[in-house]
Amino acid sequence: MPESTAAYRPTPRTVPTRARERAAYDRELVHGILDEAYVCHLGFVRDGAPVVLPTLYARVGERLYVHGSTGSRPLRMVAADGGTERADGETDPGLAVCLTVTHVDGLVLARAAFHHSINYRSVVVHGIARQVTDAGERRTALDAIVDHAVPGRSLDSRPANARELAATAVIRLDLDEVSAKVRTGGPNDDPEDMTLPHWAGVVPLARGYGAPVPSDDLDPAITPPDYLSAL
Amino acid sequence: MPESTAAYRPTPRTVPTRARERAAYDRELVHGILDEAYVCHLGFVRDGAPVVLPTLYARVGERLYVHGSTGSRPLRMVAADGGTERADGETDPGLAVCLTVTHVDGLVLARAAFHHSINYRSVVVHGIARQVTDAGERRTALDAIVDHAVPGRSLDSRPANARELAATAVIRLDLDEVSAKVRTGGPNDDPEDMTLPHWAGVVPLARGYGAPVPSDDLDPAITPPDYLSAL
Repeated sequence: MPESTAAYRPTPRTVPTRARERAAYDRELVHGILDEAYVCHLGFVRDGAPVVLPTLYARVGERLYVHGSTGSRPLRMVAADGGTERADGETDPGLAVCLTVTHVDGLVLARAAFHHSINYRSVVVHGIARQVTDAGERRTALDAIVDHAVPGRSLDSRPANARELAATAVIRLDLDEVSAKVRTGGPNDDPEDMTLPHWAGVVPLARGYGAPVPSDDLDPAITPPDYLSAL
Repeated sequence: MPESTAAYRPTPRTVPTRARERAAYDRELVHGILDEAYVCHLGFVRDGAPVVLPTLYARVGERLYVHGSTGSRPLRMVAADGGTERADGETDPGLAVCLTVTHVDGLVLARAAFHHSINYRSVVVHGIARQVTDAGERRTALDAIVDHAVPGRSLDSRPANARELAATAVIRLDLDEVSAKVRTGGPNDDPEDMTLPHWAGVVPLARGYGAPVPSDDLDPAITPPDYLSAL
């Protein structure tokens, strides 16, 4: 049961070649970074070349879900791809992906141009994306994707009907080969630069929410629900 | 001169298979999206599998620059890779990459779960990343990367010295095969759902800047420079 350990096991491709002190494998840290973002960047290989697309997603336990039109490229590739040959010679349907999530938390200004940086938190997940065909798991995934953006919203909207479900592909990616990378704190200037006359420090960045804008055709009697204030 | 046209020329991989009305090729739109973000997601293929890493970058005209330690994986791959075979059979050194930038501008809440979405602006660049070896172009790129985060900052910091330059790899990616994708506006609910009792509309999202936090070891006489107020 991988869920019972506190950390993901590092693998050759989740151990960075540099800045190793910034790498982390703690599950709670990883979950927090994944849950806070709205969009991930999903990478896959098509005709030998890399493709990176932004997409919505959600985490349910140790599994990530991505959805999209059955006509979209990566989702068609997962469905159609004969996939990956396993060590035992059998074919394992699915698509090799890398799913990355990044938060930019601050601009780091150092006295030296070389030491300029950003404070950030990122998660990189490697694995094989597989199509979800089970009706119950598909419902769970689609609710989770709506609730990932606005917690509680799936209970306050019309559930997908049969036509909509047929038009929607859902893929899953297990959280198995996973790493986080985090930079915090101020600039790391060299001792000999400390007396230079340049300002040094951090400009914090954070997400800001504007007031909800009702749809033009919304009945004015329907006021913004409480779960929007929690954002 | 590709710079003299107002738009990038669509190619098979920059024309989406769906939501084509959201695709755009206008150079000014693309430049604006690229210039506003701090981090891109750089995708490449290693050992046949996709890798997507967040990284700093800057645009100079019709070229993007990414920098990093000479020890980092993609930068080593660009330097070492024999690269891509051209149609004429010659080898073209460089690394096939996909560089993607995304802004999340709002959460779109529809009456139907199926029509939930986000408002976003993204740019996807396909191409071959090549190492920059010319000293002048390297300086230009490194200044641009500092100024991309904080305009004007490269003139108010110590320029890289020979040791720092030797430790820094710079790669470039021409803006040639490029597309933007943009969603704006409210939810697109179906007519039969208009009388449902659920709130519908958009929650706007925007980047917020905190007050600059000086480094612990900063001389208190050095106050935040004017160019920080412009952020």
